[in-house]
Amino acid sequence: MSLEALKKEVYEANMELVEKQLVISTWGNVSGYDEESGLMVIKPSGVPYKELRPDQMVPVDLNGNVVDSDYVPSTDTDTHIELYKAFKDQGIRGIVHTHSQFATMWAQMGKNIPCYGTTHCDYFFGDIPCTRLMTTEEIEEAYEKNTGKVILEEFEKRNCVEMQAVLVHSHAPFTWGKTPHAAVLHAQVLEYVAKMAIFDEIATGGKCELIKDNIKMKHYNRKFGPNAYYGQHKK
Amino acid sequence: MSLEALKKEVYEANMELVEKQLVISTWGNVSGYDEESGLMVIKPSGVPYKELRPDQMVPVDLNGNVVDSDYVPSTDTDTHIELYKAFKDQGIRGIVHTHSQFATMWAQMGKNIPCYGTTHCDYFFGDIPCTRLMTTEEIEEAYEKNTGKVILEEFEKRNCVEMQAVLVHSHAPFTWGKTPHAAVLHAQVLEYVAKMAIFDEIATGGKCELIKDNIKMKHYNRKFGPNAYYGQHKK
Amino acid sequence: MSLEALKKEVYEANMELVEKQLVISTWGNVSGYDEESGLMVIKPSGVPYKELRPDQMVPVDLNGNVVDSDYVPSTDTDTHIELYKAFKDQGIRGIVHTHSQFATMWAQMGKNIPCYGTTHCDYFFGDIPCTRLMTTEEIEEAYEKNTGKVILEEFEKRNCVEMQAVLVHSHAPFTWGKTPHAAVLHAQVLEYVAKMAIFDEIATGGKCELIKDNIKMKHYNRKFGPNAYYGQHKK
Amino acid sequence: MSLEALKKEVYEANMELVEKQLVISTWGNVSGYDEESGLMVIKPSGVPYKELRPDQMVPVDLNGNVVDSDYVPSTDTDTHIELYKAFKDQGIRGIVHTHSQFATMWAQMGKNIPCYGTTHCDYFFGDIPCTRLMTTEEIEEAYEKNTGKVILEEFEKRNCVEMQAVLVHSHAPFTWGKTPHAAVLHAQVLEYVAKMAIFDEIATGGKCELIKDNIKMKHYNRKFGPNAYYGQHKK
Repeated sequence: MSLEALKKEVYEANMELVEKQLVISTWGNVSGYDEESGLMVIKPSGVPYKELRPDQMVPVDLNGNVVDSDYVPSTDTDTHIELYKAFKDQGIRGIVHTHSQFATMWAQMGKNIPCYGTTHCDYFFGDIPCTRLMTTEEIEEAYEKNTGKVILEEFEKRNCVEMQAVLVHSHAPFTWGKTPHAAVLHAQVLEYVAKMAIFDEIATGGKCELIKDNIKMKHYNRKFGPNAYYGQHKK
Repeated sequence: MSLEALKKEVYEANMELVEKQLVISTWGNVSGYDEESGLMVIKPSGVPYKELRPDQMVPVDLNGNVVDSDYVPSTDTDTHIELYKAFKDQGIRGIVHTHSQFATMWAQMGKNIPCYGTTHCDYFFGDIPCTRLMTTEEIEEAYEKNTGKVILEEFEKRNCVEMQAVLVHSHAPFTWGKTPHAAVLHAQVLEYVAKMAIFDEIATGGKCELIKDNIKMKHYNRKFGPNAYYGQHKK
Repeated sequence: MSLEALKKEVYEANMELVEKQLVISTWGNVSGYDEESGLMVIKPSGVPYKELRPDQMVPVDLNGNVVDSDYVPSTDTDTHIELYKAFKDQGIRGIVHTHSQFATMWAQMGKNIPCYGTTHCDYFFGDIPCTRLMTTEEIEEAYEKNTGKVILEEFEKRNCVEMQAVLVHSHAPFTWGKTPHAAVLHAQVLEYVAKMAIFDEIATGGKCELIKDNIKMKHYNRKFGPNAYYGQHKK
Repeated sequence: MSLEALKKEVYEANMELVEKQLVISTWGNVSGYDEESGLMVIKPSGVPYKELRPDQMVPVDLNGNVVDSDYVPSTDTDTHIELYKAFKDQGIRGIVHTHSQFATMWAQMGKNIPCYGTTHCDYFFGDIPCTRLMTTEEIEEAYEKNTGKVILEEFEKRNCVEMQAVLVHSHAPFTWGKTPHAAVLHAQVLEYVAKMAIFDEIATGGKCELIKDNIKMKHYNRKFGPNAYYGQHKK
């Protein structure tokens, strides 16, 4: 893919965050990764969405060097880099960070989002993990890079394709996908299920039962399993 | 009704789900049934609403055979078929499935939606039932057909005209009506009352009292009873 | 005021209910009363807002007779009549009925909305009352008229100008005002404060303290008292 | 800045309150202060946003005298004046008052908004304070001025640049900033974090843990500290 095409795709995915009401002001960011050039392209830091243009998207290599741009990349760039380094071999090409409200409520509580229904397991295989608290050392030095590292700790025991979302403790969610657009969809679905789960949590006094494994497997597999039958496979 | 007319009606009812904010992405589906031809027409599987066109609506017979279409019908087609087979003699001609948020919260809790007020009983006569959990066998073989069957279990003891909605346990709601448009309205009202009921449930710690039978009967009957007096009956 | 002018005003107030998201489908209704002719004008029964036109508004006298119209007036007409008969001497000229969600939640719980803040007492002087349950006799005969009568019971001990809203138990709110437009504003503010109050109720486990009398008096009086100083009084 | 330019800026900031859904009807107000002339410009009292025009914005000096205007300034003018007198030397040039729903819920409970996450501490350094109850004397004489004074009591122990928001007990929030536009952004972020915090409060039964100091410091400082690295600093 040409750099121009990637910038356009990343720009459009960023604007989708606004349209889907996942961000306000200058918050949040989407990046896209191009395997061929080894570059990722990300939203510039602190630019309001109303003023955003495709040419402002910032190319960065996986060592964190800005390539041919006058713009400062998102503050969260080093977190994106850590995730691409770990996830790119599983085909991840887009990453999203938002402070969407219901997902962020769970992050603030420091709790995983329990899998209470098929809407959740149509996209996320199991509880959506919340990272551990970071240490003072991790926070004070290379905070954004270490944010990536505590996320990756959770993925030592999980597959980044089966679980394309995480909550950073006291902070907010990251999601990813095979394209920037897919990562935005996952951010939207995450917010959707986070809202349903917190109401269920409240309405049951924390006693809502997890979805049974049999139906969880069924729903995830009919969309993503080897014999998936959702969508227009015929064509 | 011509197949083209039915496709158009079903297409419009599907788009209404978006307008009424009952679905996102490719989620949900509406079907319509034509008594004369014995065909139902349903949304194609996995097509985003933004790209949906009337000609993509898929005709299917009640044995599940696609008729004259290159599109794969909704994954939930077999559930719709089970419901039409059981309900068509009571005049049901439209079915809707959504994952609308407040209704789905109740499905995730596995609880009936209690009838707390006249808004509810203006449309649904009594608590809106939630199905039992499905067995592993039911899930692994013919899952969508069996989803229809567990819904029908609830309607052995209920009338599908007095109660035009159901929650599938751990999953989400189905609604129906005398037209696809009416089924969409029921999906919208279901979501409306589900939201009010969960707040009442939370605010009272689960101790909100059910509506009294006398007022429940009155409201349902003034709209749907033999002496109904709601609407422009004069003309 | 000419009947045409009143029809237009009532039509516009009805459409405002949609714009302010207080109603869906055919729900709710606004009426306006003209002192000179002794007629009220009200929304026709069961007509969707999308199809509503000014000429469909139905003139009705205070004995319930439709005057010069082919349309059936709102099912709730007799409730409006009872309220005008009792309130018109205090200058009430508009009445609104909605099933707006947060106000209706309180009606379903059968609870007054406690006055927790100045937003509430800027408009409503004290807790917003919820009527008693109606008896079977009251429901079965002249239900809508008797709905008006149980509302009026609450106003034996209250002033209909200081408190321009009520919740009908298990049902939903009515509001009123010096014009149809003012009654719609009160319906909107009622919904606004009902939402804040239910969250406060939940977050405090029912222990939120009522606003102190000194600040309640101050806020109500600076808008409506004899020395009111809110608004463009200069001109 | 010319008075015309300030009126335009204040007008636009007021209209932003509507766009961001922080106000309804005639509620809320934004003011801007011009150091050079020593005048503040504020929304007129009781004018609906739909009818608002830049030339209606009212210039007022810090003794409360209207300068060259036929309009009555906002009822809350004296509160704004108290805040400018105390805060202008720290560069505060814009003040906002709204009754935005989630922030107001906290004010009605008379509770500080606890700092539960980085969204909060990206803008507000620590819990957002709620003022003490006012005395009857304070309410009955010079209520709006005394509202300013009880706010300032909270800022004897706080810095008005690190904490640019406050809740007035039983009432609603005020926010401020280096421009009217910045004050509106703070009103929006306040509402955003107030919503997240109340859900966390409810979902944990009041036991949600405050954010750790190390991450609170980090987030606030990366945006506002001496070595801040958020935004396009390069240019």
